[in-house]
Amino acid sequence: MTGDPARGPSTLLTGGVRAVNIGLAGFAEPIRTHGGACAQVEWRPPAEGDRALGLLLARLEDDPDDPFGAQVARANAEAVRRIVEGRPVAVDVRTAVEAIPGMGARTLLHAGPPITWERMCGPMRGAAIGAMLLEGWAATPAEAEALADRGAVEFAPCHEHATVGPMAGIVSPSMPVIVVENQAFGNRAFSNLNEGIGKMLRYGAYDEAVLERLRWFAATLGPALGRTLRASPVDLRDLTARALQMGDECHNRNVAGTSILIRTIAPALVRAAPDDAAAALEFMRGNDHFYLNFSMAACKATLDAAHGIDGSTVVTAMARNGVEFGIRVGGTGGAWFTAPAGVPDGLYFPGYGAQDANPDIGDSAITETCGIGGFAMAAAPAIVRFIGGTPADAIAYTRAMYRITLTRSQAYGIPSLGFAGTPTAIDVRRVVESGVVPIIDTGIAHRLPGMGQIGAGITAAPYGCFTAALRALGRRLGLEEAA
Amino acid sequence: MTGDPARGPSTLLTGGVRAVNIGLAGFAEPIRTHGGACAQVEWRPPAEGDRALGLLLARLEDDPDDPFGAQVARANAEAVRRIVEGRPVAVDVRTAVEAIPGMGARTLLHAGPPITWERMCGPMRGAAIGAMLLEGWAATPAEAEALADRGAVEFAPCHEHATVGPMAGIVSPSMPVIVVENQAFGNRAFSNLNEGIGKMLRYGAYDEAVLERLRWFAATLGPALGRTLRASPVDLRDLTARALQMGDECHNRNVAGTSILIRTIAPALVRAAPDDAAAALEFMRGNDHFYLNFSMAACKATLDAAHGIDGSTVVTAMARNGVEFGIRVGGTGGAWFTAPAGVPDGLYFPGYGAQDANPDIGDSAITETCGIGGFAMAAAPAIVRFIGGTPADAIAYTRAMYRITLTRSQAYGIPSLGFAGTPTAIDVRRVVESGVVPIIDTGIAHRLPGMGQIGAGITAAPYGCFTAALRALGRRLGLEEAA
Repeated sequence: MTGDPARGPSTLLTGGVRAVNIGLAGFAEPIRTHGGACAQVEWRPPAEGDRALGLLLARLEDDPDDPFGAQVARANAEAVRRIVEGRPVAVDVRTAVEAIPGMGARTLLHAGPPITWERMCGPMRGAAIGAMLLEGWAATPAEAEALADRGAVEFAPCHEHATVGPMAGIVSPSMPVIVVENQAFGNRAFSNLNEGIGKMLRYGAYDEAVLERLRWFAATLGPALGRTLRASPVDLRDLTARALQMGDECHNRNVAGTSILIRTIAPALVRAAPDDAAAALEFMRGNDHFYLNFSMAACKATLDAAHGIDGSTVVTAMARNGVEFGIRVGGTGGAWFTAPAGVPDGLYFPGYGAQDANPDIGDSAITETCGIGGFAMAAAPAIVRFIGGTPADAIAYTRAMYRITLTRSQAYGIPSLGFAGTPTAIDVRRVVESGVVPIIDTGIAHRLPGMGQIGAGITAAPYGCFTAALRALGRRLGLEEAA
Repeated sequence: MTGDPARGPSTLLTGGVRAVNIGLAGFAEPIRTHGGACAQVEWRPPAEGDRALGLLLARLEDDPDDPFGAQVARANAEAVRRIVEGRPVAVDVRTAVEAIPGMGARTLLHAGPPITWERMCGPMRGAAIGAMLLEGWAATPAEAEALADRGAVEFAPCHEHATVGPMAGIVSPSMPVIVVENQAFGNRAFSNLNEGIGKMLRYGAYDEAVLERLRWFAATLGPALGRTLRASPVDLRDLTARALQMGDECHNRNVAGTSILIRTIAPALVRAAPDDAAAALEFMRGNDHFYLNFSMAACKATLDAAHGIDGSTVVTAMARNGVEFGIRVGGTGGAWFTAPAGVPDGLYFPGYGAQDANPDIGDSAITETCGIGGFAMAAAPAIVRFIGGTPADAIAYTRAMYRITLTRSQAYGIPSLGFAGTPTAIDVRRVVESGVVPIIDTGIAHRLPGMGQIGAGITAAPYGCFTAALRALGRRLGLEEAA
């Protein structure tokens, strides 16, 4: 009746073709060529076309009359309850060695599933070298490499120490870490402080500017934030919910989260650290990603409380070390199910391209695991300017993720979807059955040490992680894969 | 291909009926009854069905071969250029009497077109009483009323002093005002500081808590912000653009704008006013509308530069005094074209309803005049929780406004419309011709003095203002209304 179709800025609103292409990417091209919007979702045939896996899947379906089906249903209901009721609150910033249980004086934590120094990718090696220089364990990059070569550094996954770190995820003992307490269940999780975008330690850079910033974190920013949060804890569930109303998905876009965080803590920061407040506020003002690490630690604290429930098929971690992608599942204990990490599909900074990109890296996929990040992309249409695609793609990605999740968040509503809750609690069964894999939006690191960030884009969790997890769960429940 | 229609949270996304009803509201009901989304846009028959007005409209259409048509086209092109190129920057906070040209020691500025004390509505009288108490001109409300009754106070419209004030818009000499400089054209505009939501002076409340807050503004907050902005001016075009990416429309929703403003000025504030910074940051943190008055002053500075161009049919102000709605047009000098103000249609705070509401009031419609506010509602889907309606309505309102505007903002993109610019530069001709009138989202004041805000909603500019303006423009150009 009104509105002018000829002016229509978006096919979403003018009734043009909107499609989601699942599987072979080639089918999307004709649609795009003719002006339609088409989001690409990774897909493979259900259960890999594997009869044994298909039968296992059938045995694990919710079924009150079947002992296995009933156990899985109960376990998942409990996992969902714990995720939905999680109440992550930022309560402190402390050095890693003080705060993180099991963190030794010669430990370096890293992103993703376990990996040895020898197998680490360029950016992770670069970040580890930088951390060794920062800690004073080595005076030069060559000395640092020699130290690691002779096994004098203990490497361990962040995730196995209730910690998450973006990209390389290197956390060394003296680094200040955000302490997030899940006030519903009593557990704590940790993350380092975000350095900003570009040439940074977490992307494998370790020049003097990088180290100088980290020294200032340890000497000034960390202690100031610690005093602030001890005096005035910040409810991160509430903060993330507000950021999702303001165009963030709280993984690759944190403009609103960072702004709200600054606004929230500024008065207490001025009181707690009057001499350092201006510099701390200035640093945070200049870093639109400052909230990312708070968001990640909040997700980790939430999901750790839902881990370790026998029979649960809910994914409790997705993480990448730059070589392998790994997942952990609620009902399979500490096991990691891994597959080779892919290279994200995205937009590169000027002068760089896919040939420079390291495979997918970082613990930041904890956000998607918790139902935000890529899963909440419909809340963040402006993110497509950073990672590629259109606002219609962003909505399509979120909608696709409803197929593989067990619930919708009560806390996290998406305005453009009529305030529907974000797709939450990834179910391994649904991934294996549908062939739709979790999507993740992420930064892209240069593949060489010492370089830094070169872009941002979209990636997908490898399907093989989920089939392996399902098989392990079957074995753990005493189910043989039927013939 | 994917997505589950049965789960679809919004008719916008599931292919259900989406309609915009123009004119008689009754036609929208059957659509809504059957689950469709329907936004209501005010409408009347073109040119009121008036033949003379229709012929005048035809003479004023853009036409290079017609002297009148060519002049209008040239004038509007210049007006659009000045609006688009406007560069409002917050440079200072000073007392009104220091900053505002023509502000006398016994002047009270008020919202909307000119009005005498005798004809003022309840909330405006209440605010004026509060300002007289604040200034020390009277010791009691009765003394204040007596003072005004005997003509000892000079009332003048904010708009005639390059100033805008939300709701009652009362600005008294000692109040601190934001100074916005349009750095593209050199003019300045002013607004007072936002008090917060609820029982506030601008809604007609004047109890001791209201006055105490205003004294703190004058003694502490205003001077602290003045020192801050003099040291570090803030580009408001850039800030508004970012807020529109974050779910604000910068009239009735200012959560993002307030957060970004705090983030932007916090370091300079700590340096400029170390002793008052914590209290100032705490006040701003608690007031999600703090950015509104910055947004309004920025729009006023932008539009004033586009005023006073002979032949221009572009609206340069829309404002309400609680009794009348008035507009000013670029080509008709200082004249106001007025019509009775309507009561907004919206959501009320608990315990209040339409019977308690004052007619539409405030200068805040300067935001819609500048292409944001209600015109940018598609950028702020979450606002419907505050003013009523659905996110689909928000998009429909913005789309309808493209019909009556001359351009799309280069600076202000709307993510949900594929980053299309907001509808900017209202053309009196298009309003008269189409019968579509500008929509405004606004707060609702109690009709009695001393009460305060009782809700928020949607209202529309009266059609009669635009026909009157068009006729005046015709007379000014020497065009007789043809028979």
